[in-house]
Amino acid sequence: MRYADNPAPAHFSLGSMNIDGTPTRTIWPADGAVEIIDQTRLPHEYVIHRLTSLEAAAEAIRVMRVRGAPLIGATAAYGLALAASRDAGDDALRGAGDALIATRPTAVNLQWAVRRVLDLLLPLPPEQRAAAAWREAAAVCEEDVAQNRAIGRHGADLIKAIAARKMGPLNLLTHCNAGWLATVDWGTALAPVYAAVAAGIPLHVWVDETRPRNQGASLTAWELGKHGVPHTVIADNAGGHLMQHGRVDLCIVGTDRTAANGDVCNKIGTYLKALAARDNGVPFYVAAPGPSIDFTLMSGREIPIEERSAEEVTHISGLDGEGRVSTVQLTPTGSPAANPAFDVTPARLLTGIITERGVCGASRAALAGLYPERL
Amino acid sequence: MRYADNPAPAHFSLGSMNIDGTPTRTIWPADGAVEIIDQTRLPHEYVIHRLTSLEAAAEAIRVMRVRGAPLIGATAAYGLALAASRDAGDDALRGAGDALIATRPTAVNLQWAVRRVLDLLLPLPPEQRAAAAWREAAAVCEEDVAQNRAIGRHGADLIKAIAARKMGPLNLLTHCNAGWLATVDWGTALAPVYAAVAAGIPLHVWVDETRPRNQGASLTAWELGKHGVPHTVIADNAGGHLMQHGRVDLCIVGTDRTAANGDVCNKIGTYLKALAARDNGVPFYVAAPGPSIDFTLMSGREIPIEERSAEEVTHISGLDGEGRVSTVQLTPTGSPAANPAFDVTPARLLTGIITERGVCGASRAALAGLYPERL
Repeated sequence: MRYADNPAPAHFSLGSMNIDGTPTRTIWPADGAVEIIDQTRLPHEYVIHRLTSLEAAAEAIRVMRVRGAPLIGATAAYGLALAASRDAGDDALRGAGDALIATRPTAVNLQWAVRRVLDLLLPLPPEQRAAAAWREAAAVCEEDVAQNRAIGRHGADLIKAIAARKMGPLNLLTHCNAGWLATVDWGTALAPVYAAVAAGIPLHVWVDETRPRNQGASLTAWELGKHGVPHTVIADNAGGHLMQHGRVDLCIVGTDRTAANGDVCNKIGTYLKALAARDNGVPFYVAAPGPSIDFTLMSGREIPIEERSAEEVTHISGLDGEGRVSTVQLTPTGSPAANPAFDVTPARLLTGIITERGVCGASRAALAGLYPERL
Repeated sequence: MRYADNPAPAHFSLGSMNIDGTPTRTIWPADGAVEIIDQTRLPHEYVIHRLTSLEAAAEAIRVMRVRGAPLIGATAAYGLALAASRDAGDDALRGAGDALIATRPTAVNLQWAVRRVLDLLLPLPPEQRAAAAWREAAAVCEEDVAQNRAIGRHGADLIKAIAARKMGPLNLLTHCNAGWLATVDWGTALAPVYAAVAAGIPLHVWVDETRPRNQGASLTAWELGKHGVPHTVIADNAGGHLMQHGRVDLCIVGTDRTAANGDVCNKIGTYLKALAARDNGVPFYVAAPGPSIDFTLMSGREIPIEERSAEEVTHISGLDGEGRVSTVQLTPTGSPAANPAFDVTPARLLTGIITERGVCGASRAALAGLYPERL
């Protein structure tokens, strides 16, 4: 692991998201290894973490050095490339795929990326597999970037339309981090924000801190700040009150898995914000790249919900008075905690779904209309 | 300030709430001063804090050494007793009342208690005022305890009825701390829990951690644990998901101020839980002692919402690895935060209101029926 002094090496395509003015992606190949931004160290430390093996890639997904459905998929693809470089045999690759899929149960992109790479590799002669895996992982990344750029374009049109009807900056609310850091570049829910800002639309983002892991407070706030987008961090409890008082014009969130009927599984707490948006007439959109849509699921009820460690609720990390990252216990010793990591927002609460192919209603018919080849 | 070795001195009436088996109240007079449990030190340290002046009482309310509408009212009453012991003149007492009311803007009990004590004192000859103030503050406390005991009785009947219709322990969800620690004894929202437990009904409490000040994680979990009530701390984001999966049978929360139409102003985030309860058919009750009902307010929209320091969102305290209470920064340096402390849950989302005079619907007519003399 080394501290990043040059986060944008010459050999990978430049992204459009900036860290203090330097275009940067969240993952890139580097001399037979893979480098990522270690998101467990944000927002207090900006550290590049080097993955040199399948095991390192699986660990990075499991402990959430990388997170966000699209970035998990990209990391899994590179994990298979790392595995194929060591042993390209059928058993080794299938084992590697299983190990990667076991790291996180909810995001569909993980399974999708593993299947895509394995389906490509296994028919090939073993000696061609490693090179093909690296090429395919890069292709997964490029497609993610292109998808997110398209989501940004479609979402920015929505933002423009809403902004045209009001005075002053548009107030957008988002939950968790479905930004640049959750993807290879641009983000899903935040891609429209970045595209709208680039188009000169004045806006401000309410950032749900997103307990228990605080991806909003630590990642969304960080990336918006680094890119120069006005934002305010709020407790997850505050969004309903802000909507009651007309201080939210639009919600956009991401999705870890979208069912064929438009039900959306996203970070725990998304459902509560969707209820509040409905109760106050605030448009509520989900940014969903194609790979996050699982046409094999009839409804969100079938999506397994990851139960994570209680310690994510009982303890929290932050910067202490001496400038060190330190962990403190929040609850009384002996009080147990539960930690479901996702919830399902029913399609009926969504205004629409923003995909790379356009914006559609949250329904089986609408999604099938955009992705007829996936049925 | 001293550490409590005997939290239940012989000269005050024993409460029914236990700390490790010792009945204890949250406030009591002690040799011309007043002692409180310093709630800013919980759950990691149990410290008795001594108030010897009006200024100390006001400070205790402002920095939330005491919090919870009923306990704020009791502390304000004792604050006037401390003021009257020093200077019982009209100007001094009126100034003391103003200073106390200025400490927190939302809770109606504060204004109610100050007016009640001043209305009693000002007509008296100055030399009788100090003694009368101490007697009246004690009466405010005794009435709070009696009210909460009655709320407990009425609420336990509700719990019994719901428990009779299901197998296994009843799962109740609460937000913030409207327990014993928010009152002089028993609590409001938790009084039914304690009464039901005393009646032998098996139950388990989901405790919303209640960001940003974490009164659930630090106070509700602590008092339930000390009294031996099974409970689990959850992120505020989790309650909707638990309700969707049938894991919450009943919600009971407190209220800082209740409007005449049944709108309820309570800790930020209450509204989101009420929306989820409605969406999932989970009964949602508010425990409201008479003094929390403000018949001069036509609706909750008239209630001023306290905006507290951004630092409550950006920083948090907990027990560090060396067993010391330490504060850490959660957000990136430079990211602003907003911190509205309460929200208003509209009456239409409430199943009912539990008062010391019985359970009623959340409507002007129902509340007026229980409190005809207040109209």
